[in-house]
Amino acid sequence: MIDPRVSEALEVLERTPRALRSMLEGLSDPWARADEGPDTFSPADVVGHLIYGEETDWMPRLRIILEKGESQPFTPFDRFGFRETWGGRPMDQLLTAFTELRDKNLDALRGLGLDAARLELTGRHPALGQVTLAQLLAAWVVHDLGHLRQVARVMAGRYREAVGPWREYLPILDEPSS
Amino acid sequence: MIDPRVSEALEVLERTPRALRSMLEGLSDPWARADEGPDTFSPADVVGHLIYGEETDWMPRLRIILEKGESQPFTPFDRFGFRETWGGRPMDQLLTAFTELRDKNLDALRGLGLDAARLELTGRHPALGQVTLAQLLAAWVVHDLGHLRQVARVMAGRYREAVGPWREYLPILDEPSS
Repeated sequence: MIDPRVSEALEVLERTPRALRSMLEGLSDPWARADEGPDTFSPADVVGHLIYGEETDWMPRLRIILEKGESQPFTPFDRFGFRETWGGRPMDQLLTAFTELRDKNLDALRGLGLDAARLELTGRHPALGQVTLAQLLAAWVVHDLGHLRQVARVMAGRYREAVGPWREYLPILDEPSS
Repeated sequence: MIDPRVSEALEVLERTPRALRSMLEGLSDPWARADEGPDTFSPADVVGHLIYGEETDWMPRLRIILEKGESQPFTPFDRFGFRETWGGRPMDQLLTAFTELRDKNLDALRGLGLDAARLELTGRHPALGQVTLAQLLAAWVVHDLGHLRQVARVMAGRYREAVGPWREYLPILDEPSS
């Protein structure tokens, strides 16, 4: 029986492409290409980074846990690895690629029969050490949500000065970049 | 001529209802009703609060600036004022009400002919003092984005422990509530 933790995680994972499309489709470049300084992500970079995660991070690691356990540590993930293939692409292309890859990965995930026992299977993270499949799934969800909040924060930052005295009521304007 | 700052702000303001619908429509209650403790907002509360802002805050203040200037200070806004009318309502009802009110307000905003001169008109905030119409418009945008990031953060918080050792890579899990 599929564990309820999987269905609950899927509720978020399947909504992320739609959420990003609603926020970003058709948005002008000053919003879509804004960032927080050197080596920080713009909204467009976030989508590229999420695409790269679909290609190389979440499902490949999940399969390593199921097939190899701790005997094969995960391949380290490069936060900026998306740049070579996905940097500078038009937003619509990024959103479509992310949607397609995410849908495909979640179809595969649903087919894996992740019951309570399988969620306790373990793998080896190259820096964090032993992790469970349940932790990987939860981290995937939180990683999505973290990038949604990052998109909102990066966009808000453009108006840090424009809000004038309202700044003290708008803590998003003074949160650290990430 | 409508000031370009208005068109730019509208890009965000008109997307917020769709963004919230993509994130929240059909979401189960454990996600939709999660909060960060006493007197903090759940995702459903955020939508209620945004509805109340459409009814009593942003456009009414904008009209006060245009019609009365600084002679009539804004009515103080109650962050929890939504509870009486909108607390505990089904998510779909909240999302629909917010979408309708926002659309109506933005139609009105587009009709006000906000050129550069009007954006410099001033009003009086009951706590912050003198503010310009341009600052009010920018604060409206940032307020939307702040609540989008809040929804993401509140939802992520449910998995603070579930991610295990990944927590140190996921700063959204340790950001203060707001």
